[in-house]
Amino acid sequence: MTADDLVSLRRDLHRRPEPAWCEFYTTARIVDELESRVDLDELYTGPDAIAGEHRLAVPEDDALEDWYDRALAAGADEATLERLEGGYTGAVAVLERGEGPTVGLRVDIDALPREEAADAEHVPAAEGFRSANDGAMHACGHDAHATIGIGVLEQVATSDFSGTLKVFFQPAEEVVGGGKPMAKSDHLADVDYLLALHVGLDHPTGEVVAGIDGFLAITQLEAEFTGEPAHAGGHPERGRNAVQAMATAVQNLYAIPRHDDGATRVNAGIVEGGSAANIVPEHARIVAEVRGETTNLMEYVRDRAERVFHSAAEMHDCEVDLETGAEAPSATSDGELVSIVASVAAGTPGVDRVLERDDLGGSEDATYLMREVQRNGGLATYVGIGTDHPGGHHTSTFDVDETSIGHGVDVLSQTIEQIAIERP
Amino acid sequence: MTADDLVSLRRDLHRRPEPAWCEFYTTARIVDELESRVDLDELYTGPDAIAGEHRLAVPEDDALEDWYDRALAAGADEATLERLEGGYTGAVAVLERGEGPTVGLRVDIDALPREEAADAEHVPAAEGFRSANDGAMHACGHDAHATIGIGVLEQVATSDFSGTLKVFFQPAEEVVGGGKPMAKSDHLADVDYLLALHVGLDHPTGEVVAGIDGFLAITQLEAEFTGEPAHAGGHPERGRNAVQAMATAVQNLYAIPRHDDGATRVNAGIVEGGSAANIVPEHARIVAEVRGETTNLMEYVRDRAERVFHSAAEMHDCEVDLETGAEAPSATSDGELVSIVASVAAGTPGVDRVLERDDLGGSEDATYLMREVQRNGGLATYVGIGTDHPGGHHTSTFDVDETSIGHGVDVLSQTIEQIAIERP
Amino acid sequence: MTADDLVSLRRDLHRRPEPAWCEFYTTARIVDELESRVDLDELYTGPDAIAGEHRLAVPEDDALEDWYDRALAAGADEATLERLEGGYTGAVAVLERGEGPTVGLRVDIDALPREEAADAEHVPAAEGFRSANDGAMHACGHDAHATIGIGVLEQVATSDFSGTLKVFFQPAEEVVGGGKPMAKSDHLADVDYLLALHVGLDHPTGEVVAGIDGFLAITQLEAEFTGEPAHAGGHPERGRNAVQAMATAVQNLYAIPRHDDGATRVNAGIVEGGSAANIVPEHARIVAEVRGETTNLMEYVRDRAERVFHSAAEMHDCEVDLETGAEAPSATSDGELVSIVASVAAGTPGVDRVLERDDLGGSEDATYLMREVQRNGGLATYVGIGTDHPGGHHTSTFDVDETSIGHGVDVLSQTIEQIAIERP
Amino acid sequence: MTADDLVSLRRDLHRRPEPAWCEFYTTARIVDELESRVDLDELYTGPDAIAGEHRLAVPEDDALEDWYDRALAAGADEATLERLEGGYTGAVAVLERGEGPTVGLRVDIDALPREEAADAEHVPAAEGFRSANDGAMHACGHDAHATIGIGVLEQVATSDFSGTLKVFFQPAEEVVGGGKPMAKSDHLADVDYLLALHVGLDHPTGEVVAGIDGFLAITQLEAEFTGEPAHAGGHPERGRNAVQAMATAVQNLYAIPRHDDGATRVNAGIVEGGSAANIVPEHARIVAEVRGETTNLMEYVRDRAERVFHSAAEMHDCEVDLETGAEAPSATSDGELVSIVASVAAGTPGVDRVLERDDLGGSEDATYLMREVQRNGGLATYVGIGTDHPGGHHTSTFDVDETSIGHGVDVLSQTIEQIAIERP
Repeated sequence: MTADDLVSLRRDLHRRPEPAWCEFYTTARIVDELESRVDLDELYTGPDAIAGEHRLAVPEDDALEDWYDRALAAGADEATLERLEGGYTGAVAVLERGEGPTVGLRVDIDALPREEAADAEHVPAAEGFRSANDGAMHACGHDAHATIGIGVLEQVATSDFSGTLKVFFQPAEEVVGGGKPMAKSDHLADVDYLLALHVGLDHPTGEVVAGIDGFLAITQLEAEFTGEPAHAGGHPERGRNAVQAMATAVQNLYAIPRHDDGATRVNAGIVEGGSAANIVPEHARIVAEVRGETTNLMEYVRDRAERVFHSAAEMHDCEVDLETGAEAPSATSDGELVSIVASVAAGTPGVDRVLERDDLGGSEDATYLMREVQRNGGLATYVGIGTDHPGGHHTSTFDVDETSIGHGVDVLSQTIEQIAIERP
Repeated sequence: MTADDLVSLRRDLHRRPEPAWCEFYTTARIVDELESRVDLDELYTGPDAIAGEHRLAVPEDDALEDWYDRALAAGADEATLERLEGGYTGAVAVLERGEGPTVGLRVDIDALPREEAADAEHVPAAEGFRSANDGAMHACGHDAHATIGIGVLEQVATSDFSGTLKVFFQPAEEVVGGGKPMAKSDHLADVDYLLALHVGLDHPTGEVVAGIDGFLAITQLEAEFTGEPAHAGGHPERGRNAVQAMATAVQNLYAIPRHDDGATRVNAGIVEGGSAANIVPEHARIVAEVRGETTNLMEYVRDRAERVFHSAAEMHDCEVDLETGAEAPSATSDGELVSIVASVAAGTPGVDRVLERDDLGGSEDATYLMREVQRNGGLATYVGIGTDHPGGHHTSTFDVDETSIGHGVDVLSQTIEQIAIERP
Repeated sequence: MTADDLVSLRRDLHRRPEPAWCEFYTTARIVDELESRVDLDELYTGPDAIAGEHRLAVPEDDALEDWYDRALAAGADEATLERLEGGYTGAVAVLERGEGPTVGLRVDIDALPREEAADAEHVPAAEGFRSANDGAMHACGHDAHATIGIGVLEQVATSDFSGTLKVFFQPAEEVVGGGKPMAKSDHLADVDYLLALHVGLDHPTGEVVAGIDGFLAITQLEAEFTGEPAHAGGHPERGRNAVQAMATAVQNLYAIPRHDDGATRVNAGIVEGGSAANIVPEHARIVAEVRGETTNLMEYVRDRAERVFHSAAEMHDCEVDLETGAEAPSATSDGELVSIVASVAAGTPGVDRVLERDDLGGSEDATYLMREVQRNGGLATYVGIGTDHPGGHHTSTFDVDETSIGHGVDVLSQTIEQIAIERP
Repeated sequence: MTADDLVSLRRDLHRRPEPAWCEFYTTARIVDELESRVDLDELYTGPDAIAGEHRLAVPEDDALEDWYDRALAAGADEATLERLEGGYTGAVAVLERGEGPTVGLRVDIDALPREEAADAEHVPAAEGFRSANDGAMHACGHDAHATIGIGVLEQVATSDFSGTLKVFFQPAEEVVGGGKPMAKSDHLADVDYLLALHVGLDHPTGEVVAGIDGFLAITQLEAEFTGEPAHAGGHPERGRNAVQAMATAVQNLYAIPRHDDGATRVNAGIVEGGSAANIVPEHARIVAEVRGETTNLMEYVRDRAERVFHSAAEMHDCEVDLETGAEAPSATSDGELVSIVASVAAGTPGVDRVLERDDLGGSEDATYLMREVQRNGGLATYVGIGTDHPGGHHTSTFDVDETSIGHGVDVLSQTIEQIAIERP
């Protein structure tokens, strides 16, 4: 693929951002692109690509259908779409090139549920590839990731690589919901070496991080508070106020003590409650997440958060139904692969600075795949491809410097070839 | 109308509850019923019925259209509906019967945005007239009010009444949004005596309150908090958290000090905020209302609430946009009319207990109409028609004892006739 | 006593404010004054005056001793003081004047734990009788009450009154702690008519309220939170933070929903917690009070408050020890006495406006005595003696208009004489 | 000194814990011990030992005098005490032994304002040297530090050491108030090498840490809220509630977002407010501290905390007076000294494990002295001497294993001798 091809593909994906498990258009477009460009040996989609029973945080049927219909309307291939029905998005592409190790590359493909900036300083708006899907945006660069995955497949296919390459186009990273079902699928079982990647992360264009660590373990928690409604003017005393319970919980969630052993996080990312100004609210809901630098630290925050939810409910005589959502563990990049990436990157045109290691300081369900490979005796690393990004990750002005897409394709393709040679 | 007619009409209205300004089916059904039953002199609907520019809390166009379409689908008369388009619901029916005073009767017709109980103990569910409109319910008896309005028109039309009777079928009482535009319409200008009514209010079937006072003055407030999003794992310190601002506001709103001069109320009836578990929330919203036994008391709470919103925003470095919504004043029932109602009620079959006075302890925008009539030198009273109701007002198990509908028709019809005779 | 005598006595008491159960100087001064002015039949002090086992909210021994020593140093009579040791303050003075009913007058004598204003606009500061006791102040007029009690005794003693007069100089009203033990003493058992009084209450000089009602029932609650300390820098996660529990409780206490049946109150009047900036606080304490227009309403708030304390403790993994302190019921003034007071007051020089009834809107443990007398078949009323007061009750600039002291003496003395004549 | 001497001295100091700037007995005992045991060249106390104008967080005169009197009553030397009057505690001891570098050793001597455990499992209670000062306790091992300081002076004095040794007995570490004035005194100006030490820190007996880093920068903040009092029953609406402001602040302080760059801390260590259960609280106070792994991180929390204090005050219409108290920067141990300590420790009997580095994870104003020496071109390290401690630091059951006192004396004395030889 030429640089123009990469940009053009990335922009098309950018225009069609789809949230977790709704990547219908995205998957169809990936399939279409691969079929026309790469001589694959296998291409798995739908229930064949992932261990469906391990999917986490799948949206309601209504939402799935709505996004399905949008994908159809946007021109996605109907035959492909049918295989994805019910939220079985994502794909696994396999390239068999003779004797050699099995190398995996994992790229994530989903977008975020947020509005994209529309002002002229935001390049996608200025150049006409701003999100066409209201309320959704590629604000974390997964459009570039998917593009890199295709570029790598094409480049390795035409190289001297000897072995098997599997590229995992993983859905639902943003809800930490797709890593586990992909890790549990059969496709990962024979992978000897796994690479994952992320663009940006505050690294500028031209910088590469050979091994990212410091993944925060994460759990999502959803609390539903149920009280008793009452007329707010007539009989406020008869109410059991779920919104007061929710507000008490929010205040105390963020106030969970810091831990001396390392970083922790807590966020009440979505809240809602009540039905009318004049009714004492009977229902309220919090979708929260807790993180920790280690699994122990995450569990410390999670346990405290559960206590907060329960006692906030009790405070206002409400019930609370608490569900644990998606989870991801921590993981570490293996030194042997880090060395190869670092040495390849150092020789890649356009890359002017290579860092051996850096911390993510966030969470990622790539860790599920990394740990699975490591458990089977394999090696894994998580590579950072620097890209100038005007807004921060997850903000409405996030964008990538498209020249970095080529850096990603080059560094990863050559690393894969080199791994097949060195077999560390 | 026979008792069966009244029940049948009320049940049809009950099955089709529509929230404020969306009473398309309801208005069309009222029009239809009046045209077939009563020899009216005038029947105003749409922009002719109300002073449209004074409407408060009108929903978005999408919602209006959605309810319009539902009404159409439910079989409402299309010609009537067209006159109501854009949320011009409600009607004013006029009966001219020679010399005499102009007496007004105001009934409200809207429903609440809440789910109705579905269990067998709930009579509407058991007998098949539970709400057919998901998320909406006649949980405050306005289905009975509308029915009584029609019953009174029919009964007075066939009586010896001499004078003019106007029945105001008022939309949007629940959002305190319809009283003002109806009070500002020309129809009220020549009303000498005004009656308003409410069923229930914890008074059992057979009880009548001749004059209700103690209306709480009310203001609705809507606060939009805007902060700054950030990746909750990667850079929590970069966020300015609108949900924390909202929670701080909720906690402090309910904690506004009580006032020694009389009752006050505050409720954060609707809250929402955030977009994803892993994003520090950038937006949050509270729809609140404040009330007071007097306008001064309401303003005391409103001023404190505004302080709470502003400093909660400042606490978390957010902006807040504060809008004042619907308002209603307080009002008092006039003794001259109270005496007539009391004496009529005492002689009405089925009524076994008459209270001269009671307090509402809630708000009502009937006060706009009452004060307007009083300002013009007229008299007004707000009548309570007792009805056994299993659940409290605004709860999912609210229902009325249908025998009380007849009491309402009888007491009010005869009061109207008596007023025309006594002209107090 | 001349007007000058009354002023002089009141000013001496004002200079020596003493909090609940510490009224050593005050009691000794009352005893001294009575012995020199009135030919009493009995004068009870110490354990003879009250049912000591029913005392509520008695301070620690240290505080009692400290105030005892201050009284001694200020020149109080040592023999009298010895009878009061251990917090047995207050006195009951009895005047027997032949045949007739037993009339009681209850006056309270304690001060408040607050600093008095020192600026020149505050009369006690300008005229040299500001509190000599740091941190204590007569900010509710009980100095005037005690003075009126003595003035009434003297005036009735020299009148034609026939019957028995008992004046109850009650300690510890401000902590709602002295009413019960005085009501339970034998002295009240034979009282046929009881008068109580309060100056001010927003009524100006020259105004008298013949019967005050609307006493709020009250309960004091003391919550002690116990957690686990930890080094705030080294191991914040090891702490169980009692101050966070306390803050959560305070926020939710004030947010207990209003009640439609009538007025409620809640106040967290004293809070404290923690021991050093760098230790996660292990202890915290709240002294709160709840009130209600009826006992039921008070119990509603009390039950909710208890829930708040328990769940705030649980929220932060702390224990809470909850003690119920002083309590006082509600009470009503009897119409027969109200009429006599009103008619006497109307004829009293200096009184230019008489109100039959008004509401206190606060609490008072005079209700214990009133209800006890009423339970025994007697009658009671609580009289308001208007006085201009620059600052509100309980604030640092509170003061009384001393001309109203004479009004109090006159109205109450003549009411007592009239009661003996009318015997309603 | 024999092991028994060390234990006996430490136990005497343990029985007489004195808080910051009140170490009168402690200083006098140190002076006494030094004068009887060591042939010092200089011994500075009182204003001669520290730069008095830089003292931070000095208590009120009342408290100073109270502790002064206790020291006198406990038998402290009166002549020494007089030099310390007004809170000029601490001492600097100088030993000149010919040519060579100037080596400093800093030990802190103050105790904590907390009650000591009294149960039999707590060794000081069981063996009769539990705190004799109610409400104060050596819960952080500074009794052992002072003892080690004396032991080192004695041991170095009788060794072959060539150079000058200065031991800084620093007051007021627990309030981060004594480091700065000791760093600013002339005594530190010519120090070439500085050692500081701490026992315990979760390291068991036999373990030594040669260089501790990870000091958190710290600032103390004191917020005084002032509102308006009111009678809580009579006119709650007239109050401006300082306790509500305080509670709102506490809830939001702990909820300041975590920072991705590193550890932060916040603690509301002391709170108080209000004066009586029935008065809406007019005053409240928070003594808080904020920390950060770097000075920037500390300032991030401090700025957010200031915003919290200001907007919590505004929320409840109160004023807030905010004072910044003691501060301490971060610091790093120098590798050259770390090596010497590590090598000496490895050869010290009783020491069975040596760690090169560890993080404190807390704050320490030894950093002031370390940075001052480093700024002058010298070297510094902060040494950890392991000791088994049953309770955590700052808790009521903290105690030290007294065998570790000898380890401290040996490691530090021999390090000082070795530094004079190596002069790194």
